[in-house]
Amino acid sequence: MFESAALPHVLDKEAYQAEEPKLRQALLDAQLDLVGRKSFAAIVLIAGVDCAGKGEAIQKLYEWLDPRHLHTRAYSEPTDEERARPRMWRYWRDLPPDGTIGIVFGSWYNDPVKAFVLGKLDELAFERELEAINRFETMLADEGALILKLWFHIAQAEQKKRLKKLKAKPGASRHVLEEWSGVDHHMAATGAGERIAQRTSTPYAPWVVIPSADDRFRDLTMGQTILASLEKRLAGTAGVEPVAAPALIAAPDRKTVLDALDLTHSVAKAKYEKRLGELQDRLAVLSDAPEFREIGLVLVFEGNDAAGKGGSIRRVTQALDPRRFDIHPVAAPSDEERAQPYLWRFWRRLPRKGTVGIFDRSWYGRVLVERVEGYCTEAEWLRAYNEINDFEAQLADSGLVVVKFWLAISQDEQLRRFQARAEIPFKQFKITDEDWRNREKWGLYRQAVGDMVDRTSTARAPWTLVEAEDKRYARLKVLKTICERIEAALR
Amino acid sequence: MFESAALPHVLDKEAYQAEEPKLRQALLDAQLDLVGRKSFAAIVLIAGVDCAGKGEAIQKLYEWLDPRHLHTRAYSEPTDEERARPRMWRYWRDLPPDGTIGIVFGSWYNDPVKAFVLGKLDELAFERELEAINRFETMLADEGALILKLWFHIAQAEQKKRLKKLKAKPGASRHVLEEWSGVDHHMAATGAGERIAQRTSTPYAPWVVIPSADDRFRDLTMGQTILASLEKRLAGTAGVEPVAAPALIAAPDRKTVLDALDLTHSVAKAKYEKRLGELQDRLAVLSDAPEFREIGLVLVFEGNDAAGKGGSIRRVTQALDPRRFDIHPVAAPSDEERAQPYLWRFWRRLPRKGTVGIFDRSWYGRVLVERVEGYCTEAEWLRAYNEINDFEAQLADSGLVVVKFWLAISQDEQLRRFQARAEIPFKQFKITDEDWRNREKWGLYRQAVGDMVDRTSTARAPWTLVEAEDKRYARLKVLKTICERIEAALR
Repeated sequence: MFESAALPHVLDKEAYQAEEPKLRQALLDAQLDLVGRKSFAAIVLIAGVDCAGKGEAIQKLYEWLDPRHLHTRAYSEPTDEERARPRMWRYWRDLPPDGTIGIVFGSWYNDPVKAFVLGKLDELAFERELEAINRFETMLADEGALILKLWFHIAQAEQKKRLKKLKAKPGASRHVLEEWSGVDHHMAATGAGERIAQRTSTPYAPWVVIPSADDRFRDLTMGQTILASLEKRLAGTAGVEPVAAPALIAAPDRKTVLDALDLTHSVAKAKYEKRLGELQDRLAVLSDAPEFREIGLVLVFEGNDAAGKGGSIRRVTQALDPRRFDIHPVAAPSDEERAQPYLWRFWRRLPRKGTVGIFDRSWYGRVLVERVEGYCTEAEWLRAYNEINDFEAQLADSGLVVVKFWLAISQDEQLRRFQARAEIPFKQFKITDEDWRNREKWGLYRQAVGDMVDRTSTARAPWTLVEAEDKRYARLKVLKTICERIEAALR
Repeated sequence: MFESAALPHVLDKEAYQAEEPKLRQALLDAQLDLVGRKSFAAIVLIAGVDCAGKGEAIQKLYEWLDPRHLHTRAYSEPTDEERARPRMWRYWRDLPPDGTIGIVFGSWYNDPVKAFVLGKLDELAFERELEAINRFETMLADEGALILKLWFHIAQAEQKKRLKKLKAKPGASRHVLEEWSGVDHHMAATGAGERIAQRTSTPYAPWVVIPSADDRFRDLTMGQTILASLEKRLAGTAGVEPVAAPALIAAPDRKTVLDALDLTHSVAKAKYEKRLGELQDRLAVLSDAPEFREIGLVLVFEGNDAAGKGGSIRRVTQALDPRRFDIHPVAAPSDEERAQPYLWRFWRRLPRKGTVGIFDRSWYGRVLVERVEGYCTEAEWLRAYNEINDFEAQLADSGLVVVKFWLAISQDEQLRRFQARAEIPFKQFKITDEDWRNREKWGLYRQAVGDMVDRTSTARAPWTLVEAEDKRYARLKVLKTICERIEAALR
């Protein structure tokens, strides 16, 4: 889920210097408004991997804000006083009062995350802790608190570099190295962070990931994220407004996972045909194996218009026994479906064990077309991410292998394909006015896809981004991914 | 929590015949309105102990409502079709469409409850299942469904009687006896029911317990409960309104746990003094024991005005080392406390391990005086029950023994005490205009106390109702309860 946080998000000095004074003034104005009104407390929770610059970022907040109404509480090992009381007592004691901003460092997430990363807490117990945290934060939000949770993220390689540099410095000993969030545990800590984001990111207490490889980008993004939440709440009416940002990863530079794709991949025809045959044989054998009866396959095909979903699906079905697969083209819901929760029409089409359900577009319409076209409310598509994660977890629990593809092409390539379709009579049915209209919203869709992948690429149902500029390359990648996922499931 | 459901709730024939035609017409009107508008689906979930008359109650609904827009789905062992799909598939498939009422019998609660009762699921795993159910129901409610969950309850003795009678009948074999909800598992099933009610009773999908010992009372109460939910929702604006009823136990006869108290208990003076000395010695020894350092004691005193809280507290503190207890009289919150979540002022006063915190009135003010006087909103005191259960569970987790007393006197006795206070100069400070005003709201307070005990008497922090008409009897019962709870905790 955090992949796009590790993209090279960078802010140059001029851009920073142009933005920083404005941000600073706006933050201060918002804070003074809060102090004057005393209508709620803002809780900013700081977490993330080691060496991501959490301490520096907090320093920056002290520079920007009026420090008299800003308090930081940091927690490490409990004191004697604290040990003599229930675990949450120390956090309760220090809750910021209305009208102030409280920064919580080493929060109520720390103990469970640490224990989970170090293997002292199993999945079930970890999940239970997260549910208890959810209840706590729901209560705080119900009582009026604004809660914002920031995860500072850097890639493992960057972290390694920083630690090395740090050790060479004279003041190194002052740096508190968390035993669980260092280089050795980068993967596990990131995994724990992803789980946390999935389970405890609520509309009232969202997690936002701050890409932290570049100091200027980190600080400005953090500041803007806090500002947006404060302003939204201060502008709201009496009630408690959701503070959820649509994006899990705060990236004012609008870089998404799609930016990391190399669309120049291609495969020559002869090689393609040989590989295609091999992969189709492999898939045929796998789906015919007796053990396949114990599992099943859910294939999700999403992608830009004209990215080649249909062609890829055909190459898959050629390898399958027609009695054992179904293709579900997903268009507008029927009357009957509209009288049900939106996931109902997918539940009713789930494959039995031992069979393959192929969805040509899917439940992700909720966070793509429905979001972009305004067919559902913001609250609806925001909650859809977790609902979908929950749905797919249930599929995986039942033994189904969930494989999700996003077929990506460039805007230019799409234009070429549209034009080609318009020219060839038997392909004209494939191109409609709507396709041209969607094309005008390219940027909005791109953002929606980025958010979708960030929020719904989970360990058990990961997204596979497919570079589809070259159709042959795309089809082979699709087939290969399916084979590998089945093999992993059967192992 | 379900104690008051087992009270003798009875409805005589005349009263039933007077009410039934009105209820029936109103139910039908509401249903036709729903059918016409097709704006949401109503899901009525039916659960409870065996032989409580669930089937008969559903029959009654078919008699009252238009059966063309009413569907019942019953689930037992999964079919082959169902086993080949994720566990929730069968419930999804059968969801009632907008405009209809769906009765769900043997619902998504069945498998986890059964497994838990039979000891095949441990606490942690059971809790996880309940959280998954919460997510499912939240999604349904967010998608517009009206969800109402009814638990049909009868006492174990009544159940035993019914089963015996049933076995003598020729058609007995048609009765499906659930292996986990019969007489042998009555306690465990009730315990599971209580947990479910605590964990999954949300404003949007509340549990309501239907006292089912009397058929007429059962049917009419069920009908009225369903009607109230339907009407509230149909009258609401576009948005989804909470359907929560304030009461966990549906009791139109307004009988509460307080009705089961025998206020004639009393103790003669000589016997009282002997017993008092013994119990105080026992408490002194217990609270002085080295093992007591590992636990701690939270005493909550609530009760009618002039019920003798102060006197009871004094008899407790006489037995304690003054360095190891604190009395916290709870009145209106300070400015500082008002700038925090309402539980904050109690968290800050929690006793350390090895000590005793005595609360003369407590966090229960939220669901008593604040509810009755309208100092907080309905939504606030409704969510307070679960917040308080959560709070007390954390205290218990940390080793604290939570003992909660409700000191009950009759309205006449209160008047006598008020008058006595008004006459004795050094007791005049104890009686204020407010006391007289509260007295006028006797009925409202009584209902609030009943709801409070039903909703917050948990296995780890049960309420002890104290018959306080005789002060000596009350003081002894308080001391004895404290000693027994400490002894149980130290075992």
